[in-house]
Amino acid sequence: MSTSAPQPPLPPAAERPHLALVPGEPGGVGPEFCIRLAQQRRPDCRVTVYADPDTLAAAARLLGLPLRILAQHQADAAWQAGDVVLHPVRNAAPARFGIADPANAQAVIGALSEASDGCLAGRYDGIVTGPVHKAAVNAGGIAYSGTTELLAGRAGCDVVMMLANEIVRVALVTTHLPLRAVADAITPQRLRQRLQITHAALRRDFGIAEPVIAVLGLNPHAGEAGHLGMEEIEVIEPVMAELNAQGMRLVGPLPADTAFLPDKLRRFDAVMAMYHDQGLPVLKYSGFEQAVNLTLGMPYPRVAVDHGTALDLAGSGRANPSSFMAAVATCARLAQHRKASR
Amino acid sequence: MSTSAPQPPLPPAAERPHLALVPGEPGGVGPEFCIRLAQQRRPDCRVTVYADPDTLAAAARLLGLPLRILAQHQADAAWQAGDVVLHPVRNAAPARFGIADPANAQAVIGALSEASDGCLAGRYDGIVTGPVHKAAVNAGGIAYSGTTELLAGRAGCDVVMMLANEIVRVALVTTHLPLRAVADAITPQRLRQRLQITHAALRRDFGIAEPVIAVLGLNPHAGEAGHLGMEEIEVIEPVMAELNAQGMRLVGPLPADTAFLPDKLRRFDAVMAMYHDQGLPVLKYSGFEQAVNLTLGMPYPRVAVDHGTALDLAGSGRANPSSFMAAVATCARLAQHRKASR
Repeated sequence: MSTSAPQPPLPPAAERPHLALVPGEPGGVGPEFCIRLAQQRRPDCRVTVYADPDTLAAAARLLGLPLRILAQHQADAAWQAGDVVLHPVRNAAPARFGIADPANAQAVIGALSEASDGCLAGRYDGIVTGPVHKAAVNAGGIAYSGTTELLAGRAGCDVVMMLANEIVRVALVTTHLPLRAVADAITPQRLRQRLQITHAALRRDFGIAEPVIAVLGLNPHAGEAGHLGMEEIEVIEPVMAELNAQGMRLVGPLPADTAFLPDKLRRFDAVMAMYHDQGLPVLKYSGFEQAVNLTLGMPYPRVAVDHGTALDLAGSGRANPSSFMAAVATCARLAQHRKASR
Repeated sequence: MSTSAPQPPLPPAAERPHLALVPGEPGGVGPEFCIRLAQQRRPDCRVTVYADPDTLAAAARLLGLPLRILAQHQADAAWQAGDVVLHPVRNAAPARFGIADPANAQAVIGALSEASDGCLAGRYDGIVTGPVHKAAVNAGGIAYSGTTELLAGRAGCDVVMMLANEIVRVALVTTHLPLRAVADAITPQRLRQRLQITHAALRRDFGIAEPVIAVLGLNPHAGEAGHLGMEEIEVIEPVMAELNAQGMRLVGPLPADTAFLPDKLRRFDAVMAMYHDQGLPVLKYSGFEQAVNLTLGMPYPRVAVDHGTALDLAGSGRANPSSFMAAVATCARLAQHRKASR
């Protein structure tokens, strides 16, 4: 029996952002992370889980942790460890942890779609998504290139991918492109739009009144005055000058190898990298387990884990839920900022 | 007066690798770092400095540190703080700290060339170089694209650039290329040669009998089985298979964003990155001040500082000599390994 002092009551439900939580692949680590989350008393948010109750029950048994499935209207009673408010989305086949079953592709995508619709309808203040197994969804006959693309498509908006941990926030101008296609993809239009979305999100979602964004060069040494490439001079600098004239605080273009030095990072609210492998190695090196994946520019905050389905760990109880927990905490904080700025 | 116990005698001169030390730009931080080094009793090496005695004297006055310039034959007497064995290379104009004077371009390149010749003639066991101001050398009428190129050219050999600190060693397949030229530069010939040079250097210079080298992919997610680029399948994997069949221990191709996770890094003796900004941000983030720049594949070990001339700090006494000191210690260690393996 706990001897700790009684905890203060949770803030009223209306003051806590309401998040939709989609665990993702039923055979992956998402369900067990939902069970672990349910053991936490959260003063920062309320959560509705879009999942199959049987899958959650199996995950709870596996972990030896309590689970009490509630409907929305039951959730205002005193909180107990294991409480889960559920929006049920049935799997076609029972989840087997460690196996991504294409039979459940429709349930995986259905849960994301329904939760997304709930966000767009204003029933939730944000969404947190677990890892989806792309190959299993495709094998299940559903065209799917990624959760970010699915959510952005349903919302009908352009988005920016940002990865963040306690050390650094990295936004990307291009994401999953072959390296040889990157240089041509750094157009003034794309760069301008990515910077505008990132700037607006830092203000609205992170509550940073005048965000400072470090913009990396495309080429080594940021082109070294044109000796190592012209994109800095022809594309990046003109767009930066234009946006800085409008009041942004963009710094650069900076050489990528020294932009992340810890002393420099402390001066930036975010780093805009031109491409995937320029921006993400330091992010993951500096704090992989707490890293989260944000989708900026959406009508609601969206935060995802920064890892895959971890089928090799699913069901073992050994998977580290840090990124999932960080995603929930981050989404709650962003949603709170949006509520406050309304 | 020091009350510490008397130090053991230095190892005999013949047992300590003999390094040539070239401070680089006379107006930069190289001369003051040489003076700081001269205050250290070094059981790991002997050093001959290729510099102008007046420049060293000015740096010593500035720092308020002793300097006693010796000829080679005088250096076997008992060591005193401030002892510098000098190979004089006169500057055309007196050094002014903080200013890179093109008038001294010939002296800068002359010092590098003479020290390089001494290494090739077997008079030294390795070379340590300070930062050179490329624009000043070029303004002085000398074609110069970098010290690595100069030394490799005089030695007539192909080399690999590696940056290293206490955390990770990163070798590069391509170095100072515009990003749009990188993909086409990843040829089987170049990749094979870079891996062979790196493998041989890890064995000979680092004394690692069976080095494990992590090879990064070119594309994000290492190409994701061809969805994000074909170079992994068409170029990188075949070369790796060929070299592994010959006994190398190459791991990959790995996605760059997760290859540097601390748990993984511990399993690798080096990481082979395909290009500059893929490999160097983590290296510099994880330990910039102790990072050094190595040139692998030379007839002698060459180690350089991993920073520029720092003209803004030169003469202030505030410049951090960590990289310079790490370069000397690393070169001494590599030279010792080569001596031991002869």
